[in-house]
Amino acid sequence: MSESLNPTAFVVFTPSGQRGRFPIGTPVLQAARTLGVDIDSICGGWGLCGRCQVEVQEGEFSKHQITSKADHLSSPGETEQRYQAKKTLLSSRRLSCSTQILGDVVIDVPPESQAHDQVIRKRPEIRDIVLNQSVRLSYVEVEEPNMYLPSGDIFRLKEALHWLWDIKELSCDLRVLQELQPALRKGKWKVTVAIYEENQIIAIWPGYHEKFYGLAIDVGTTTIAAHLCDMGNGEVVASTGMMNPQIRYGEDLMSRVSYIMMNPGGEKELIKVVREAINSLAKQAAAEAGIEVTDILQASFAANTIMHHLLLGINPIELGGAPFALASHQSTKFYANELDLNLHPNARCYTLPCIAGHVGADTAGVILSESPHTSEKMTLLVDVGTNAEIVLGNKHRLIAASSPTGPAFEGAQISSGQRAAPGAIERVRIDPDTLEPKFKVIDSDLWSNEEGFFEEIAKIGITGICGSGIIEVVAELFLSGIVSQDGVIDGSLAERTKRIVPDGRTFSYRLYQPENRLAESSKEKLIFITQNDIRAIQLAKAALYAGTRLLMDKMGIDTVERIRLAGAFGSHIDVKYAMILGLIPDCDLSQVEAAGNAASTGARIALLDYKACREIEEIVNNVEKIETALETDFQNYFVEAMAIPHKTALYPNLSKTVKLPKPKMNPNQSAQGRPRRRSRLRSTENKT
Amino acid sequence: MSESLNPTAFVVFTPSGQRGRFPIGTPVLQAARTLGVDIDSICGGWGLCGRCQVEVQEGEFSKHQITSKADHLSSPGETEQRYQAKKTLLSSRRLSCSTQILGDVVIDVPPESQAHDQVIRKRPEIRDIVLNQSVRLSYVEVEEPNMYLPSGDIFRLKEALHWLWDIKELSCDLRVLQELQPALRKGKWKVTVAIYEENQIIAIWPGYHEKFYGLAIDVGTTTIAAHLCDMGNGEVVASTGMMNPQIRYGEDLMSRVSYIMMNPGGEKELIKVVREAINSLAKQAAAEAGIEVTDILQASFAANTIMHHLLLGINPIELGGAPFALASHQSTKFYANELDLNLHPNARCYTLPCIAGHVGADTAGVILSESPHTSEKMTLLVDVGTNAEIVLGNKHRLIAASSPTGPAFEGAQISSGQRAAPGAIERVRIDPDTLEPKFKVIDSDLWSNEEGFFEEIAKIGITGICGSGIIEVVAELFLSGIVSQDGVIDGSLAERTKRIVPDGRTFSYRLYQPENRLAESSKEKLIFITQNDIRAIQLAKAALYAGTRLLMDKMGIDTVERIRLAGAFGSHIDVKYAMILGLIPDCDLSQVEAAGNAASTGARIALLDYKACREIEEIVNNVEKIETALETDFQNYFVEAMAIPHKTALYPNLSKTVKLPKPKMNPNQSAQGRPRRRSRLRSTENKT
Repeated sequence: MSESLNPTAFVVFTPSGQRGRFPIGTPVLQAARTLGVDIDSICGGWGLCGRCQVEVQEGEFSKHQITSKADHLSSPGETEQRYQAKKTLLSSRRLSCSTQILGDVVIDVPPESQAHDQVIRKRPEIRDIVLNQSVRLSYVEVEEPNMYLPSGDIFRLKEALHWLWDIKELSCDLRVLQELQPALRKGKWKVTVAIYEENQIIAIWPGYHEKFYGLAIDVGTTTIAAHLCDMGNGEVVASTGMMNPQIRYGEDLMSRVSYIMMNPGGEKELIKVVREAINSLAKQAAAEAGIEVTDILQASFAANTIMHHLLLGINPIELGGAPFALASHQSTKFYANELDLNLHPNARCYTLPCIAGHVGADTAGVILSESPHTSEKMTLLVDVGTNAEIVLGNKHRLIAASSPTGPAFEGAQISSGQRAAPGAIERVRIDPDTLEPKFKVIDSDLWSNEEGFFEEIAKIGITGICGSGIIEVVAELFLSGIVSQDGVIDGSLAERTKRIVPDGRTFSYRLYQPENRLAESSKEKLIFITQNDIRAIQLAKAALYAGTRLLMDKMGIDTVERIRLAGAFGSHIDVKYAMILGLIPDCDLSQVEAAGNAASTGARIALLDYKACREIEEIVNNVEKIETALETDFQNYFVEAMAIPHKTALYPNLSKTVKLPKPKMNPNQSAQGRPRRRSRLRSTENKT
Repeated sequence: MSESLNPTAFVVFTPSGQRGRFPIGTPVLQAARTLGVDIDSICGGWGLCGRCQVEVQEGEFSKHQITSKADHLSSPGETEQRYQAKKTLLSSRRLSCSTQILGDVVIDVPPESQAHDQVIRKRPEIRDIVLNQSVRLSYVEVEEPNMYLPSGDIFRLKEALHWLWDIKELSCDLRVLQELQPALRKGKWKVTVAIYEENQIIAIWPGYHEKFYGLAIDVGTTTIAAHLCDMGNGEVVASTGMMNPQIRYGEDLMSRVSYIMMNPGGEKELIKVVREAINSLAKQAAAEAGIEVTDILQASFAANTIMHHLLLGINPIELGGAPFALASHQSTKFYANELDLNLHPNARCYTLPCIAGHVGADTAGVILSESPHTSEKMTLLVDVGTNAEIVLGNKHRLIAASSPTGPAFEGAQISSGQRAAPGAIERVRIDPDTLEPKFKVIDSDLWSNEEGFFEEIAKIGITGICGSGIIEVVAELFLSGIVSQDGVIDGSLAERTKRIVPDGRTFSYRLYQPENRLAESSKEKLIFITQNDIRAIQLAKAALYAGTRLLMDKMGIDTVERIRLAGAFGSHIDVKYAMILGLIPDCDLSQVEAAGNAASTGARIALLDYKACREIEEIVNNVEKIETALETDFQNYFVEAMAIPHKTALYPNLSKTVKLPKPKMNPNQSAQGRPRRRSRLRSTENKT
């Protein structure tokens, strides 16, 4: 037969199942490419990168069940031995570029050898983080110039990339052109190039090069967080964060926009400091990972709309008033140096898309991270900051809105409020009989009535109360009967406890009085919870609830199946207390979770997976955007939600029953009365 | 019939002949667009730009001969009257956007109303300059933002461009995004945008805007020339030029490359000064035209390979030695600010392609300007500088090479040589009987023996001899018998004239001795023509001739039909003397012309006509590149061409016949003996 003349072998690749017949002696990598099997390679078959490792499947041969034998492949040659000497190659593994097919064989491509859709991290319930870099490295050998065919070096480089990698229609950054000739000569006509989106050469190194990095950044109003990722495997190699230095122009977004309105040209300062902060984070992260900032070839950004605009150098004043017009809501791509960022000069930046004037690229990041659009479960995402961004939906439909909670949940506008930092009270319990409080401060594990508490906090101090502490104290004041359902501190209790003190025409609750037991008196503050503090929390939680309720109405639902609380506030609050105050709607508490800095995770996903970028762009296009200010129902819900809901299931210790003000009921919802909550909450009663 | 219910009219557009039937009342512009008739418009039908003017053809109607009547169009309405009040609209002309079709009509689209291929300037014999801008302006009205549909302003701008202009898939420069919101609001939601290559918004202006400019630059080794063009009509509105400030690093290219080789990092200085020079020219040109440099949205560059590389910020040292490898030979496109050019920050730059290591983008410009590839005539293009770039061919085939003439033709390496500047001797005649010379200097019309000469040159001086002067003096020395055919000054003539003086073992000819008749003695120089000077000219002209001869061999031809001499040298030399010395091959002298700064013209064509860019890129790809250093024939021709050819037809006054050294003849050519020249030269004998 012809086979004996031109012997061939039958090859099956797993897990894809792609199969074909090849001449004896064909390299495995070449066979894989012919069949379109997804095997990674940087070096293109020189045995340098070790990305193309495969495993030979063991087993027996029969006519119908094809398995394989290791001796149906060539023995490890010089290249593989050299590679084994330098790097780790498991004994079961072979380099597909250096291994020839000698007989029928089944070859397994392990996940880490696949170029596309490689899973970096599996996460419970939510999406895996997958690696699909928009920048890829390719190693090539370039033909030397000759006077008979006087083509430019870049032309021959492109030709080599075309021949070896089948990459066509390549452009080239000017800086690469400037570095090209020394790189080619230093590398003895072998170079590695970084190619962006399969069409642009953005970096070049002499010889073989395999490392480059990306930076995922969440530009928050208060803090900026950056994760440095090894773009070869997607792992985070350094994480840094810092306060947003724009704070000097205003604590919250609107005061920064006001600053710009009052100081024309002032946006330039805000733009400058935020970019400098990012540069400083990049430098820190690079130092921590032991690399140069110029090794960072990509950056991705999540940010609220105002931070997004400032990052891009766009004056955000249009976002300061109706109709809150964005300059651009779509994702953007730019060179790092267009944003004055000191990364690789040709580094490419990607900003996640914005959803609406008040719902920014950070929310797009939260959606990408939490992926409600991939699930049947009706999911509520809440990201609480100065505004609360709310996304509701599932794979069939997503709705988003922003609710004007104000900064009370962040400790602002609260008499003793402060940001979540060491020394801030974060947990509070009030004894319903004595009305005496106990509390914990951040960075201490002891309750204030436990032995050794003051020794432990000697250096930390008791400096104020943060968002989660405020939620708890207001809830505990309610549970202990000090505060009524409509939020009023009961002055008559001043007879029972000196904690209740008159404060003008209202009363305050003294949570902590300095006892001079700490060395530095400045570390002890008198902490009251005033009637105004409680009003601020009522307003904030009413806004949040009204926004959520509005979206549930739009969705035509009465309960949600899953709640994710994103951001710092979401990570710190005790979900039970959030429920007591009515911040979030009915849900099985086991389905309520903090999502951490989900916006930052979203930025990281966008950095690592260009397919996810296309996905979120599509999702954001289709998200239904609700402007709460335009919805009359929002005002109604807001007024209704001012009261603290009556939920006996949540507070067995409550000694008296408080009268509820009669809410104006919406026929589609159960509003403040939630009869179904009892059983769902029981299982998480002990959670703190 | 149905026509009476929905009356229509038959419309024919000339000169295209496109025709169709439209409902009565259809605007002419809309009918034209439907048929694909090429009518220009910036404003898109608002009666603002006046680009869409048409003329109504007069005549009678019949069933078969369709002509038209003016009353078959609507009367000029408010828009047209407003336009007529502001600008000039000929009485025979109508604005097609504001004119409705009322009956059958023939409408002529005048050339200046056509958006594409509009001829700016017709030139004798060579290509017309045509306007096909890669940047186009579009005026649009953008939908205002609203909170129900919170899209970004840029999204609505792109939508408007899509609806009105059918422009899709637009990207947007970051700076446009930064300027977008103020521009939209200042323009009351009407803006004009500049779109580059139909896919990128690069500039934005509030309201209607119709002017933008382009700069065509030829970066020469000695001089840099810039032409500022109105991109609306293609006209040159200002021209400036200056010495290339790199001259301080070396007069010629190779000394500049040597400077860089000797001073690592020195390329940065050369890059900086050439870019500064271009900025200075742009500023001058803008001031002359009364515009801002930021009105310049495009720039195009011609340059030799080393200037090309330095302009792009590429170290040119590879071009300093074999194999003379270019970093890139292809055309390039960059942002002006990548080249540190102070034009509009988003201005786009285009560099013409390079042909080979010694044949640069300036030669591509010469090809574009002189267009040998569009003609059947066998054409020789010669651009003489430090090297001579030579292109030979016609529409069927083009060959290019560079010949190492050295800088003698530019006055360098000549004892009294200087650049062509006021005070330089540019014309010389020697009386064959008395052996006395007469001469002219640049900026004076008088011969040195004419009355008033010294008065006229009092301020100019007599400072040296430039390239054309050297050609003439060597030729005249030969014609008067002072110099032999092999280039030796005949010392025996020292007996006849004191002009011949011993100079070591050779003799020199004293062309001018200061007579102290000028106020400043520094303006008079003793000017000798030395034996070395003559040798330098012999070497230069032999190299040039050998290069030309080599290309003619490759082409398999013995004579050329047309010669174009490009560059400053080509413009100054007397073609007859070039023939006497044998710089250029046989050709009917009426077909020999100076092409002026053809490289600069090529840059201007590239600026104005993107189709010409595609054309020259294609041509350059297909040009056959000859490296003279690799051709053994070149050396042979070079040696042969050292002698001054024997051409009695050219020098009737020559008193003695000089013996020719016997050249090694190539069977395909007639080498130094050109019997056919006599009759061809007669007609141009009086040309100077």
